[in-house]
Amino acid sequence: MKETNRSWYFVERPTGEPDADCFELREEAVPEPADGELLVRVEYLSVDPYMRGRMRDAESYAEPWDVGDVLKGGVVGEVVESNDERYDDGDLVTGEGTWAEYGVLDADEVAPVDPAIADPPAYLGVLGMPGRTAYFGLLDVGEPIPGDTVVVSGAAGAVGSVVGQIAKLNGCRVVGFAGSNEKTRWLTDDLGFDAAINYQETDDYEAALAEAAPDGVDVYYDNVGGPITDAVFTKLNLDARVAVCGQIAHYNDESVPTGPRKLPLLIATRAKVEGLLVADYATRFGEATERLATWVESGEIEHRESVVEGLENAPDAFLGLFSGDNIGKQVVRVAE
Amino acid sequence: MKETNRSWYFVERPTGEPDADCFELREEAVPEPADGELLVRVEYLSVDPYMRGRMRDAESYAEPWDVGDVLKGGVVGEVVESNDERYDDGDLVTGEGTWAEYGVLDADEVAPVDPAIADPPAYLGVLGMPGRTAYFGLLDVGEPIPGDTVVVSGAAGAVGSVVGQIAKLNGCRVVGFAGSNEKTRWLTDDLGFDAAINYQETDDYEAALAEAAPDGVDVYYDNVGGPITDAVFTKLNLDARVAVCGQIAHYNDESVPTGPRKLPLLIATRAKVEGLLVADYATRFGEATERLATWVESGEIEHRESVVEGLENAPDAFLGLFSGDNIGKQVVRVAE
Repeated sequence: MKETNRSWYFVERPTGEPDADCFELREEAVPEPADGELLVRVEYLSVDPYMRGRMRDAESYAEPWDVGDVLKGGVVGEVVESNDERYDDGDLVTGEGTWAEYGVLDADEVAPVDPAIADPPAYLGVLGMPGRTAYFGLLDVGEPIPGDTVVVSGAAGAVGSVVGQIAKLNGCRVVGFAGSNEKTRWLTDDLGFDAAINYQETDDYEAALAEAAPDGVDVYYDNVGGPITDAVFTKLNLDARVAVCGQIAHYNDESVPTGPRKLPLLIATRAKVEGLLVADYATRFGEATERLATWVESGEIEHRESVVEGLENAPDAFLGLFSGDNIGKQVVRVAE
Repeated sequence: MKETNRSWYFVERPTGEPDADCFELREEAVPEPADGELLVRVEYLSVDPYMRGRMRDAESYAEPWDVGDVLKGGVVGEVVESNDERYDDGDLVTGEGTWAEYGVLDADEVAPVDPAIADPPAYLGVLGMPGRTAYFGLLDVGEPIPGDTVVVSGAAGAVGSVVGQIAKLNGCRVVGFAGSNEKTRWLTDDLGFDAAINYQETDDYEAALAEAAPDGVDVYYDNVGGPITDAVFTKLNLDARVAVCGQIAHYNDESVPTGPRKLPLLIATRAKVEGLLVADYATRFGEATERLATWVESGEIEHRESVVEGLENAPDAFLGLFSGDNIGKQVVRVAE
């Protein structure tokens, strides 16, 4: 074990797109776990789009970060000092930690990682918060029915790639929007999507949708917002459901974004549009984790992680989310 | 009975705001009812904002009118010739007729009018389609809970005025937007709204709402769209429900209207936004009619009709809906 611990601190609120100036790497003493706590050597750190919201000085669903705070995020790592009888040194766990080499986690708030089910970084993706978000957002808000056409934006991301596969398991036609041919190939060739639209290669999303979703859209799982979402709304079917999970196109906006009004489209379709947050389903996390693990073990759901090497590159990994660098879940490998 | 029948025809599709050129009054023979039909002398004719949609050459929830069609609408009138054993000459009925002095209605599709419960024009308002729309939209889509703050736009209209009163019966705090002091006084002094905002007298709807709805908005019943709706969305509470019933601010738009994007606001609030159409509740119309009639008879729900005199003024009565001329339900008195 090292004597010192490197940690990323939040040192400047961004205006618009965040950059390297928002982050500062500091070296400190390795923290000591109290009773009921675990010292964890971080192997993988999660960076997620929702963290952009925590950089704002405004109350929202996630507690805002204060300037001077250490950055927080999901981690997978090895217990190196346990002050809780449920865990031993050497156990692999996942939980909410910090952007650091070592973290102290409350033993009540970690979950075990079983490498026999999936490699550890998958516990930050398909078997972690993004997988649960996909599960509840699609099934509870989207309410897919076999035969429905399900459209997913951000389809090659950590959430979208799971949404599309669960929709396929539900007997739906699945169409994904993603930002490169490598991504759209992954969706159609590996994940079984019926069609995928590379939004970088066309401006006419409505025409692309008319081809990919000729029977219109019954469920739209939105991770993105912006012009893709504008186009999908014009194709909603009667009684369509829209699950608003993310709006990454707008997270860096400094003023209220404008665009086509959508409410007039809801009357004729009687569509339902609903925002969702996975934390609301906390009492049912066990259900999601069990189902997702079963699907992952059986190979019915595939997963992929984009790995950036080294804690020093964590800010770049985070910033890359806004330019679509990742395929599947973006993680940072902090240690082997 | 007269020998001739005057009827309004739809003779020109409007661009933007409709005007008198869209309508033509023609004189024809009085139609003859077939078996199972009733000849009805129209006493009151309903004009409704949704009719603007029927003037477009586009499929929507209501069948579009073709140029050259006679205009259709709800009527209340007296049976003057019955070819159905269920109705006698002299009976008062309501149903879907035409903008005319006489109309032939299918006896299967009319309902009796009981002047002991309410004056005949109320059967086009609180006891007709607008009342049922308010009932199902508020209760089924809005899902009000006692203590909720319910905001209604177009609050002094046929639908909005009923929505607010049902919300009061459900133990809610009710705030209405309306376009004159006469209207806002009616809402607060006669209908029991807790607050009413005259949107003609302020541009700062958010500030007005902060005062009128200090605990935020749990249910928003939207008849209007536009800047009022933009403001209400910024005040939605956690798990708020938005019932999108009408968007009269946009019915005359010729291009897709733009405005602040609302989906980013839905994530933090997990709000649900849903379009509604009363026709979807057809199997439950009996329930609504019975409850509404009970509330009207007991005086728990008050109603008001704005009456324009004379069939020749029906187009003006319709056009006045878009400038907010009406308080309560707008009807045209065709005959005594």
